[in-house]
Amino acid sequence: MLRYHPEPDALAYTFGGREPALSVKPGEAIELYTEDCFGGRVRTVDDLPSQVCEFPYLNPVTGPIHVEGAEPGDTLAVHFVSITPARDWAVSSTFPHFGALTGTHTTATLHPPLDELVWRYDVDADAGIVRYHARRGDFRMELPLDPMHGTAGVAPAAFESRMTIVPDTHGGNMDTPELRAGVTAYFGVNVPGALFALGDGHCRQGDGEVCGTGVEAAMNTVLILDLIKGVATPTPRFESDDALMSAGSARPLEDAYRMSQHDLVTWTTALTGLDVLDAYQLISQAGEAPVGNVCDPNYTMLAKVAKRYLGAPSAYGGIHARLRAAAAA
Amino acid sequence: MLRYHPEPDALAYTFGGREPALSVKPGEAIELYTEDCFGGRVRTVDDLPSQVCEFPYLNPVTGPIHVEGAEPGDTLAVHFVSITPARDWAVSSTFPHFGALTGTHTTATLHPPLDELVWRYDVDADAGIVRYHARRGDFRMELPLDPMHGTAGVAPAAFESRMTIVPDTHGGNMDTPELRAGVTAYFGVNVPGALFALGDGHCRQGDGEVCGTGVEAAMNTVLILDLIKGVATPTPRFESDDALMSAGSARPLEDAYRMSQHDLVTWTTALTGLDVLDAYQLISQAGEAPVGNVCDPNYTMLAKVAKRYLGAPSAYGGIHARLRAAAAA
Amino acid sequence: MLRYHPEPDALAYTFGGREPALSVKPGEAIELYTEDCFGGRVRTVDDLPSQVCEFPYLNPVTGPIHVEGAEPGDTLAVHFVSITPARDWAVSSTFPHFGALTGTHTTATLHPPLDELVWRYDVDADAGIVRYHARRGDFRMELPLDPMHGTAGVAPAAFESRMTIVPDTHGGNMDTPELRAGVTAYFGVNVPGALFALGDGHCRQGDGEVCGTGVEAAMNTVLILDLIKGVATPTPRFESDDALMSAGSARPLEDAYRMSQHDLVTWTTALTGLDVLDAYQLISQAGEAPVGNVCDPNYTMLAKVAKRYLGAPSAYGGIHARLRAAAAA
Amino acid sequence: MLRYHPEPDALAYTFGGREPALSVKPGEAIELYTEDCFGGRVRTVDDLPSQVCEFPYLNPVTGPIHVEGAEPGDTLAVHFVSITPARDWAVSSTFPHFGALTGTHTTATLHPPLDELVWRYDVDADAGIVRYHARRGDFRMELPLDPMHGTAGVAPAAFESRMTIVPDTHGGNMDTPELRAGVTAYFGVNVPGALFALGDGHCRQGDGEVCGTGVEAAMNTVLILDLIKGVATPTPRFESDDALMSAGSARPLEDAYRMSQHDLVTWTTALTGLDVLDAYQLISQAGEAPVGNVCDPNYTMLAKVAKRYLGAPSAYGGIHARLRAAAAA
Repeated sequence: MLRYHPEPDALAYTFGGREPALSVKPGEAIELYTEDCFGGRVRTVDDLPSQVCEFPYLNPVTGPIHVEGAEPGDTLAVHFVSITPARDWAVSSTFPHFGALTGTHTTATLHPPLDELVWRYDVDADAGIVRYHARRGDFRMELPLDPMHGTAGVAPAAFESRMTIVPDTHGGNMDTPELRAGVTAYFGVNVPGALFALGDGHCRQGDGEVCGTGVEAAMNTVLILDLIKGVATPTPRFESDDALMSAGSARPLEDAYRMSQHDLVTWTTALTGLDVLDAYQLISQAGEAPVGNVCDPNYTMLAKVAKRYLGAPSAYGGIHARLRAAAAA
Repeated sequence: MLRYHPEPDALAYTFGGREPALSVKPGEAIELYTEDCFGGRVRTVDDLPSQVCEFPYLNPVTGPIHVEGAEPGDTLAVHFVSITPARDWAVSSTFPHFGALTGTHTTATLHPPLDELVWRYDVDADAGIVRYHARRGDFRMELPLDPMHGTAGVAPAAFESRMTIVPDTHGGNMDTPELRAGVTAYFGVNVPGALFALGDGHCRQGDGEVCGTGVEAAMNTVLILDLIKGVATPTPRFESDDALMSAGSARPLEDAYRMSQHDLVTWTTALTGLDVLDAYQLISQAGEAPVGNVCDPNYTMLAKVAKRYLGAPSAYGGIHARLRAAAAA
Repeated sequence: MLRYHPEPDALAYTFGGREPALSVKPGEAIELYTEDCFGGRVRTVDDLPSQVCEFPYLNPVTGPIHVEGAEPGDTLAVHFVSITPARDWAVSSTFPHFGALTGTHTTATLHPPLDELVWRYDVDADAGIVRYHARRGDFRMELPLDPMHGTAGVAPAAFESRMTIVPDTHGGNMDTPELRAGVTAYFGVNVPGALFALGDGHCRQGDGEVCGTGVEAAMNTVLILDLIKGVATPTPRFESDDALMSAGSARPLEDAYRMSQHDLVTWTTALTGLDVLDAYQLISQAGEAPVGNVCDPNYTMLAKVAKRYLGAPSAYGGIHARLRAAAAA
Repeated sequence: MLRYHPEPDALAYTFGGREPALSVKPGEAIELYTEDCFGGRVRTVDDLPSQVCEFPYLNPVTGPIHVEGAEPGDTLAVHFVSITPARDWAVSSTFPHFGALTGTHTTATLHPPLDELVWRYDVDADAGIVRYHARRGDFRMELPLDPMHGTAGVAPAAFESRMTIVPDTHGGNMDTPELRAGVTAYFGVNVPGALFALGDGHCRQGDGEVCGTGVEAAMNTVLILDLIKGVATPTPRFESDDALMSAGSARPLEDAYRMSQHDLVTWTTALTGLDVLDAYQLISQAGEAPVGNVCDPNYTMLAKVAKRYLGAPSAYGGIHARLRAAAAA
């Protein structure tokens, strides 16, 4: 299996605008090392992100990866075989004027920033837990380990290059816990080679990432990148064994909801042959709306439905099942 | 047990501004009949809501109920013992310029309305399912029965009277599937007697109620209304056996998220003694954000956390457990 | 001319839910005294609103006034003949968690409130100026006196009663500087008698009322209330000698924009016979969008167009010109 | 004077990610030809933009222009000497799922698009008017010519490249009528040479550009580009002879308002020495909030204040007055 562990100076900070770091064939498995969102510089509670990190060198991604044969109008399927924390610790923090319960750059207020604090978590992969330690008291709590990637995507369309912290239709920093092992993510290809990149591992994350960061960790992640030729995908989608999901990234948050539900309704229409209003009704009663982030430059929500409620249709020609099988092999 | 089945002309269409329909003692169990959001007038797919219903006689509630001894500054605890569909059918519909994927009164556009369609569901309470029938095709699908009330609350503060379709800090049309049997809801009391009312039963509902309605049904619901004297509650909260939840109702949707997460963070602080930033961090990693509605005059989101992640603190003096026990008895 | 100067205990704090304070005939001139938004309790920089005012006794209005013969479906025309400051001083303030550049009840943050400060302005009606004094320095500045009412409206529909601080389709706390002398305001009548009320005078106000308050003042205001029978008005509208305006009150702010522009486009269609897309185009190039408030429970924007760009159509049968003439007489 | 009239294939479609088209010295006057937002392809009412234009080749800009000596941390001053329509006609249109009163890509609805219509305006520069012709009737109307540029800015920070249709802190498609001749615009420099570009001339535009386009025209525009070394500018600012303005571009619209007002308040603090709350108060009463666009990927609002209300402070060392004088010379 191909393995790629980038040197620090090979990390990328945008989707788009960069030469590929490596090239793979469709269907090939690959193991990537991804650094945490702080570039690994926050190691103790005394390492304040605003001091040890330097804008714009935040939220590094590994890649981009050129996928042979990928062309605009295709769909890139990214199957997450495994996501494994690379260290036995992880960190989280507040960050000045970032997060959902603080004034920010855009929700501009005259308040001084909240205190910048770092929390360091113990990571016990064998036990499947992370351990929270309060900073201003003795409270500790074990929470389930549930590794995910906050940031995954391809080069944007229209000659754009976007900071990795931005989620949009190319993917990016969607920060959804649904992007975990066992899932296949679908991205519309905008440029030759797709130029996929990955980063921002979280050992776990609450819905919305309310303080602005998850339990941030370097990860060793095994992927299979594959192509669905000639099939476009308008916004990132995910497929698990049980469910289909569409991602919407926008502000205000209701627009992220609208985009994701709209895509799931129209996708349902295409998969089942239902009339669009019939699909609207079915998703209205059977659908879920997992919240990704409510702190990034765009907010992200998913629309999700159990496949069985759609009659278990085959999406993208059944590629998820094939990739699951390939991963098991 | 006290039972109250209002005549049609005794239904209420506001929270506030009305005399009580009945009075109960704290701790008393009561069975209420609630009509569906269409006042029971939509019975077939040919009964279009815009034709058979008349503004403002929409979304009727049963009540208000005067709770003896309730005073402003107290908290009303409403334990939902059971919620049982009153008929073997239920309905859902689109409605002109209402819903998340349409132009509306406030998200004003120049589009004509989407088609107004009614879907009639079979309700099989024994089997625990509802059955969807497509209107423009043969597709049918069974979905789990999961009864809930969309609308529950007390009279607002500040001499206000609000249409039942509005959710706000007094409760109202929050439209969250979390308001199901086994849950205790907490509302801050604003007027003497609290003046609780209940309606808008759904056999089930997807997250956000994207088309604007759930699987709408009349319900027979058993409640216990109780009081926590001298304890204020700033926004509706819910407690299940496993979780604590705060509701936020506002626009844009991120403000519903902020309000709910803010209340859960500050409630966590009060329950655990954690510093507020420590609570912010813990909820950021352990919290959930179930979406209520993204279609009503205010949108509703919940912030939710498993009690075990807070060390299983006792909320409101443990009243939920006592009411659970009373309900079982 | 009828004059009405309410005693403090006759002030109202809601639109709706109250008996009329007086009754007038259509076309009758009336002089009203309105207290400032603080109920006159903030008289010096040491009178902090959060200490001297008590919720919900904020933003008092004078009225409601029953207009003889007003019925639901009619339009109430309110011509502002003159708006005169009642004192030679006025006040403004920050208020905890209120305003556009602070965390608020709904845009909930973990920040402590900004400092609560009061500014006292000199009002020189003869010179036509108000004088600002910095609190933390010697800076003084004269600004033009431009008296207006922040709060004006009728009883809401649907049995609602709303706090006076809320703007909505019934009017209320729109906080727009366009509501000045010489203007006719139009409100759809929702209840018999219309039940008009008025308050919240400002000696002037910037666009959006960014800190949450204008230059707040008691006012002596002369009005003529008149009726347009059998003509409905969906949202408050204003007419000056030169322009037509539609108000939209909603959140997020783009919905206030959409509502106001939508009403102006459809009103233009009705006044000119233009196709709706032709009207959309014309307003797109000729229209203005004055900002009312960006701090109240709903935000308010106006859509405005010079009458000459529509070919100087006659709105509401030319009542504005007649009321202007009556006022001059 | 340097003149630059780009060939069609030299037009740019992004800010950032492109080599300079030309280089100028600070203080040098330059005349630029800019094509209209449709690339000049919409010439009659039968040229539908969705048919004659091809994504992403929309909203072309002229440039980028390398300014000698510009370094990150400097401010680029762009003085608009004159903006002159290049043709005697201009066009406007609706565009599928674009505009404020329609469902869009992000405010996703299930409505089909509104009709796509083109309006062709006569432009009479000597008379100072443009002439509107209704498409579905005989109505014609002269409106004042008020030329402006919708799109102006520099290369973004953080290695980003953004479609020209996006407004953000680098400038871009702010679509504000305040960007007219006689104004100096200030942009923070993010990359060596600043890489300024300009396009999207409008003969005039209503507030918010509600249908999605202004009166679109090719322009011949004379500029002077100058530098303020070592002075950063956080968001685009404008200075006219009478007023100072800050631009905010964000969603929802209240965040555009917050950003712009926040910048004007803090800029006022810096210019006058006022305490920040004193500045907040002064701007609250003296400030304006002109609406730019409510249709682009970010919405734009300005915060504006007459210089005299601040005591006529000198901004950026008085460069506006010097550039005005140079332009006159």
